[in-house]
Amino acid sequence: MNRPSPLDNVRIVLSHTSHAGNIGGTARAMKTMGLSALYLVNPKSFPDNEADVRASNARDILEQACIVTSLEEALHESVLAVAMTARTRDLSHQTLDARQAARELLVHAAQSPVALVFGRESSGLTTTEISKCQLTVHIPANPAYSSLNLAAAVQIMAYELRMAFTETTPLPSRQSAYQLASFDEIELFYRHLEQAMIASEFLDPNQPKRLMQRIRRMFARTQLEKEEVNILRGILNALQK
Amino acid sequence: MNRPSPLDNVRIVLSHTSHAGNIGGTARAMKTMGLSALYLVNPKSFPDNEADVRASNARDILEQACIVTSLEEALHESVLAVAMTARTRDLSHQTLDARQAARELLVHAAQSPVALVFGRESSGLTTTEISKCQLTVHIPANPAYSSLNLAAAVQIMAYELRMAFTETTPLPSRQSAYQLASFDEIELFYRHLEQAMIASEFLDPNQPKRLMQRIRRMFARTQLEKEEVNILRGILNALQK
Repeated sequence: MNRPSPLDNVRIVLSHTSHAGNIGGTARAMKTMGLSALYLVNPKSFPDNEADVRASNARDILEQACIVTSLEEALHESVLAVAMTARTRDLSHQTLDARQAARELLVHAAQSPVALVFGRESSGLTTTEISKCQLTVHIPANPAYSSLNLAAAVQIMAYELRMAFTETTPLPSRQSAYQLASFDEIELFYRHLEQAMIASEFLDPNQPKRLMQRIRRMFARTQLEKEEVNILRGILNALQK
Repeated sequence: MNRPSPLDNVRIVLSHTSHAGNIGGTARAMKTMGLSALYLVNPKSFPDNEADVRASNARDILEQACIVTSLEEALHESVLAVAMTARTRDLSHQTLDARQAARELLVHAAQSPVALVFGRESSGLTTTEISKCQLTVHIPANPAYSSLNLAAAVQIMAYELRMAFTETTPLPSRQSAYQLASFDEIELFYRHLEQAMIASEFLDPNQPKRLMQRIRRMFARTQLEKEEVNILRGILNALQK
């Protein structure tokens, strides 16, 4: 069973989209990040086979999409609308970057619908459309070429929304299906290696310099597992025969 | 005039891409975020009109792309290779999320080439391909549908690389007074170690099981430095005498 999630409260609104493929790409981008509410304001062609193809296994998002004839309808009962813009405008609203905007949207989505509004592929949102929104958002990009594809822009925002959603529960940085070696096992390995290096005259015990220290530093970074220590000692035994 | 940027040192490597449109989408995704080095390992169809169309004004990235026949060529002289994976594997490397991996790549890209490797649209990277990399990265996604489009995955990683690049005070995750070993140096070490294990009968080449894979996984976590590779090979030479 799905618990209700603040992501369910985030509407992706596409205004006057020209290329149906971008609507499909948007649906896939949304579903991969756990978003589901798609609003289409006067799409040029929808439904459309190209949208279905690009949506891949996210066609359910397309089937449930709300097709409306004005931005007002898409924003109905939302408490915050954020307008995607490629650059800062003259009479601009407060502009947040993608990460800040995602966090801001999520705060409000915990209780009420919010909307993220994308304009035409060619020209973006009109001044009138932006004036219906409370904030603008821009995606940091290459100043020499900042023209993101529409579905790619949705993908980044959907990703930042998911990151904002999961920030409370950070992922472990390493899978621990494997058991880490104990301090004692690792010390026995170091002693074994040191003996082998002395026996083979790689290490002069009268002039050890900092060789063991360098080796310890290297293996410390790995956080050796039990089985790995066994492999390393097995190699040493075999080579010493 | 452009100053050289660490982003120039980040290679996007696409292995065995089936759909030319994804190569074009990748080029556009890269350029919007300031990346330029595209490597294609055995693309199914390239050059291709569909790639040009999806690249829009990023065709220069396609024109400059390096087309190679093996992952090794694409990783030549790189010091860190990060493999994109959809989910955690059995014998997995250390896995970072997109944001962590972008920061890690950028730290090293300040000085040397690094690579971000993407596999086939259908099945991702093979185990052998992953074993040539030091880290894996996954993009946090909807567990019920995590199937990002290839170009969309590149877009998110390129975006995170740009964010890492523009963060005012990126914290290096590791002191880099030491120089990392290159891909080629590490591969030579693995070959040396494998030979030594076979000569000493620790490894039966007819029944290798997954020994080399385990060893690669262990050393991948350390991100070996040049001097460490020299020490390890010195020990092997001494023990083999």
